[in-house]
Amino acid sequence: MQKQTLTNLDLDQLEQRYRARLVNSLSGAKSANLIGTSDSGRNTNLAIVSSCFHIGANPALLGMIIRPSSVPRHSFENILHTEHWTVNHVNSFIVDKAHQTSARYPRELSEFDAVGLTPEFLDNFPAPFVKESKIRLGLKLAEHLSLQINGTKLLIGEIQHIDFPMEAICSDGHIDLNAAGSLAVSGLDEYHELKSLARYSYAKPNQTLRKVNKR
Amino acid sequence: MQKQTLTNLDLDQLEQRYRARLVNSLSGAKSANLIGTSDSGRNTNLAIVSSCFHIGANPALLGMIIRPSSVPRHSFENILHTEHWTVNHVNSFIVDKAHQTSARYPRELSEFDAVGLTPEFLDNFPAPFVKESKIRLGLKLAEHLSLQINGTKLLIGEIQHIDFPMEAICSDGHIDLNAAGSLAVSGLDEYHELKSLARYSYAKPNQTLRKVNKR
Repeated sequence: MQKQTLTNLDLDQLEQRYRARLVNSLSGAKSANLIGTSDSGRNTNLAIVSSCFHIGANPALLGMIIRPSSVPRHSFENILHTEHWTVNHVNSFIVDKAHQTSARYPRELSEFDAVGLTPEFLDNFPAPFVKESKIRLGLKLAEHLSLQINGTKLLIGEIQHIDFPMEAICSDGHIDLNAAGSLAVSGLDEYHELKSLARYSYAKPNQTLRKVNKR
Repeated sequence: MQKQTLTNLDLDQLEQRYRARLVNSLSGAKSANLIGTSDSGRNTNLAIVSSCFHIGANPALLGMIIRPSSVPRHSFENILHTEHWTVNHVNSFIVDKAHQTSARYPRELSEFDAVGLTPEFLDNFPAPFVKESKIRLGLKLAEHLSLQINGTKLLIGEIQHIDFPMEAICSDGHIDLNAAGSLAVSGLDEYHELKSLARYSYAKPNQTLRKVNKR
């Protein structure tokens, strides 16, 4: 295996888009999610985001990095205004529509309409869910930070609503992402199915790891 | 498809480990990375982490959430002390060893030795890389935040070193994670290979999305 090595000085010399594609690939697999928001008049907005990540289980918290100057800026404004958003897992049936939400549509056009996905308002939750998504979360803004180092925003939401297919939940609470068809994304534009290798037992010193039954 | 719905009130009622497994599954696919650190005496430490995420390409920044009271606490102390760490993609050849690093080994025992992975010090970089990993990053601490909402730490590192197999880099800078065998993780303990569906073209309004050639 021949390797290529780059330093931060080499990175500085790279053409901007080449560098963006490269550096966006480096963290590894990312979650592929659609962020649903609405203004107070129920004008909806939908944006694909690969920057959602787990922060804590109790309270149940999800983080998301947003660069306000980039495409999801209407989503960002809606979140600050309504303090709610939805996170909808992308699956293979909607992946092309999901990616198309990253186009720079004018504010008055909903990406739901532009790409052909269906907004669904549940109970009194102020943000729209994606009907075609199988694992869906409703979040309420809990903390909002600006990262000094590059001015991006970290939005932290508390999970208030969860829905998922009955067949995706394992007896111990683990969710089988394969059963829900949830995809991963790498870099800026590559989408992947997940092919499960194993679930492993809780690791302890001096104890051999076992593969555990998935369900 | 029959669905199960939970609210935050339902979550509060769940048994603690069930809830941890469930909520850790909700963000979707996560990156599987080994974090290599060292104290000033080159006593090494290795911890599997699924919380690394992209923050920015220029400067090239990676974030990581750490709960200091949890297993990676020795890693956290080393990072605060040396201000450097490595991020090493987990592949299928080392996945069991990688998961085993999550056992609570005593401080004086290196997880490299305990699980059978090889530390590699490159040039003058103060943290050890994992020889068996194919995509590897060396980071320098750039920002360190405490999240008010639950006391977890957000460590942001600037990427100073990158190495990857020559065959994994595409002509436009995108990295083919399949070619490097990088895995995804879901929940607390399930590992997945990535099966590429497509790379899509840059999305524009009123333009049909194309699949683009991977290389």
